[in-house]
Amino acid sequence: MRFRLLLPFLVVVLCCTNLRAQANDTLVLKNIGEYMLKNGRAYENLRLLCKEVGQRLSGSTGAAKSVEATARMLREAGADTVYLQPVMVPHWERGPKEEAVVEYDRGKKQRLRACMLGMSVGTPVQGITAPVVMVHDFEELKALGAEKVKGKIVFINYAMRPELIQNGYGDAVRFRSGGPAEAGRLGAVAVMIRSVTHALDTFPHTGGTRYDKDVTPIPAFACSTVDAEWLADLLKNHPEGANLFLKGNPTFYPDAPSYNVIGEIRGSKYPLEIVTVGGHLDSWDLGEGAHDDGAGCVQSIEVIAAIKKLGLKPQRTIRAVMFMNEENGLKGAQAYADSAEKKGEKHVYAIESDLGAFSPVYITLGGTPTQNERVPQWLPLLRQYWVLNMPDGGPGADIGPLRRLGPMVGNMIPYSQRYFDFHHAGSDRFEAVHKRELELGASALASMCWLASEWGVGE
Amino acid sequence: MRFRLLLPFLVVVLCCTNLRAQANDTLVLKNIGEYMLKNGRAYENLRLLCKEVGQRLSGSTGAAKSVEATARMLREAGADTVYLQPVMVPHWERGPKEEAVVEYDRGKKQRLRACMLGMSVGTPVQGITAPVVMVHDFEELKALGAEKVKGKIVFINYAMRPELIQNGYGDAVRFRSGGPAEAGRLGAVAVMIRSVTHALDTFPHTGGTRYDKDVTPIPAFACSTVDAEWLADLLKNHPEGANLFLKGNPTFYPDAPSYNVIGEIRGSKYPLEIVTVGGHLDSWDLGEGAHDDGAGCVQSIEVIAAIKKLGLKPQRTIRAVMFMNEENGLKGAQAYADSAEKKGEKHVYAIESDLGAFSPVYITLGGTPTQNERVPQWLPLLRQYWVLNMPDGGPGADIGPLRRLGPMVGNMIPYSQRYFDFHHAGSDRFEAVHKRELELGASALASMCWLASEWGVGE
Repeated sequence: MRFRLLLPFLVVVLCCTNLRAQANDTLVLKNIGEYMLKNGRAYENLRLLCKEVGQRLSGSTGAAKSVEATARMLREAGADTVYLQPVMVPHWERGPKEEAVVEYDRGKKQRLRACMLGMSVGTPVQGITAPVVMVHDFEELKALGAEKVKGKIVFINYAMRPELIQNGYGDAVRFRSGGPAEAGRLGAVAVMIRSVTHALDTFPHTGGTRYDKDVTPIPAFACSTVDAEWLADLLKNHPEGANLFLKGNPTFYPDAPSYNVIGEIRGSKYPLEIVTVGGHLDSWDLGEGAHDDGAGCVQSIEVIAAIKKLGLKPQRTIRAVMFMNEENGLKGAQAYADSAEKKGEKHVYAIESDLGAFSPVYITLGGTPTQNERVPQWLPLLRQYWVLNMPDGGPGADIGPLRRLGPMVGNMIPYSQRYFDFHHAGSDRFEAVHKRELELGASALASMCWLASEWGVGE
Repeated sequence: MRFRLLLPFLVVVLCCTNLRAQANDTLVLKNIGEYMLKNGRAYENLRLLCKEVGQRLSGSTGAAKSVEATARMLREAGADTVYLQPVMVPHWERGPKEEAVVEYDRGKKQRLRACMLGMSVGTPVQGITAPVVMVHDFEELKALGAEKVKGKIVFINYAMRPELIQNGYGDAVRFRSGGPAEAGRLGAVAVMIRSVTHALDTFPHTGGTRYDKDVTPIPAFACSTVDAEWLADLLKNHPEGANLFLKGNPTFYPDAPSYNVIGEIRGSKYPLEIVTVGGHLDSWDLGEGAHDDGAGCVQSIEVIAAIKKLGLKPQRTIRAVMFMNEENGLKGAQAYADSAEKKGEKHVYAIESDLGAFSPVYITLGGTPTQNERVPQWLPLLRQYWVLNMPDGGPGADIGPLRRLGPMVGNMIPYSQRYFDFHHAGSDRFEAVHKRELELGASALASMCWLASEWGVGE
């Protein structure tokens, strides 16, 4: 009898607790969004990072300045602790502006808008001239064979496939990463790819490339898509062919000391359990690294700011991390995971924003089956920020190494048809970012961090 | 016994038919998207509409040209029938560029970027000068009362609320539509509102306003948000006040003959059952009407083009409608519904696109409970175009009047944080539209029309 009385009582108590918790979460998340959209600093911080610091390639003075700038922003955000985590990073510098000139019709010349790929070896100091041979993919390259490639400059004119709505980059980037090795293997003296972007414009897009150990590295360039179209037309209409002059003189310096920048709010109840939110601080050197990934940095700083300015006390420790060297080494991500492992830190949840400052749509679920069932129950709370779905999916590059410590991981996926218009190009500037979209992303990240900190994500 | 054998057999047959149908739909929708993203004409048609026609306010020569242009596009798209549906429309012309000048500090003058609201009455030919009184909402206006408003120009400086993620426009636009009547009622000689946009920029945004029958109409202007901020600061720092000079001389012409432009594919099986997809052809006169609503027009034309170019034979009739006069009268929408009623047409489904050329996210459900349960079953097929949800919701303005004929109605909701940056302003130009986002919207519309045509939407 007493049991029969107790049970409904317990159910009522539990329901009320749950309802009160939900009502409280709803209010907290609403306040977070209101703070960010009305009084947030994300947009102004991004302007500072883009306009007062500028490009932040690992090892550069820009990267060093950005460490100072974001540490200051984290202190202004009110983080309980702000510290720098040392890491050695590759240091490659592009050097003087590259040259790319097509020579055709016995004396005509046309300058192309082109740049070296990141970590490319240089041409001879005076540049290199060779006949250009166009292919559209690796199959065509292999079909030509060493005989027709040796001594030539290979132009890989693979257009990002327009019909691939989400995966066009993954499909096309293999020519940027693998093109130099494949062309070099057949004796090419240099390679130039069509920029990896859907946009038809005049910006060359850089990005990392890699060489195979068994192949002599050759200089690697990318030209703008407009120039790629022009060159393809020229070659079609000139069966006698054309020469390409390429000049690029980068410098490989010894690895340089740098830092991840970290700011945290100490958990009120479980300070040793850590929720990480991050973006990467380094950028390629052609633009201002606004979408890639100044946005992720200032959004992460804003997570700290919103929680502190609203006087919230998260139960678990929330840590904003600006990872150094995502673009050409991932050394910051590795250093962060190594340090966490060495210290025996308990990481419960980690999320990053590195797909541009566009409105969020998805947050991926990278946890245990139990976690992947539990966390989507927060979805109704996140819909106000247009997070509409939580599909299974892995983390981004910077959270990847942390995975071995077992946290649930997530990736914020924005609605990013525009992302690759700007990616790794001179057009990735502050002006390309929409204030409210940046703020909505920050609101979604802060909401996830708050919920993970309050409730944990289960085992 | 025979029954027991038959039942599993039937289940298997039905499942197979269903699976085959689904597989076929998947393929058709994939082909539609591929056509639009690879070979579609939506972007080029929008360029023609924006750059070769330009603004298309009802009754203008631009509107007349746009009727010809879109009829030609529908013929090129391969529509079985293209026809013009006559409609009489209001004809208001802005006249010479307006002037708005603040006079303060005994002789200082500052020109504001301002425009008349649509359908506003004019100032006297030589303009009007009066002290300006600032309010932030109707409560402040009413609190001032006739005594402090009479003979003045009321400046309604209501900023679109940043924390309203989806409904900021609906909240703020009441001052544009109702401001002139409320200020006029208290004896104001003119009214100027802050432009209805989240953007802080120098474009004045126009848009329709209305007068109450019992109040003498007064001239109504909007200034850019930057100018609104400047004027607010000035008034705060100048307790002695300032004068505002306003000049605008529009012309009200008699109603003019115009047209809805309609193109259709006759249904192969149920030709008398109609699926409508539409946008509005008229635009405000300050920009090129790219997002509002050239996009909806060229997307609707593209629905016809994709289905015809792919050689598909829809079972029901699919009709693309360019509605005339959405902005200042809705006469085209009414004419379309009136004609349908008179002819006794059977309308099964109608959808419109009038929230900008941004990637689609939602399609609203405006049907019977049975229909609202049935149609979301198509959602998995639409996810590839990022249509992620189908919430209950009404149609847009142009489909509204058709509702009395009983079709299920829908509205395509894109991810439109940027929409009101351009809405009704000089910045609503072709260059503000992203090619792939426009095409994704067209793909989603075509998918919905195809499915509604193939399967119907139920009763």
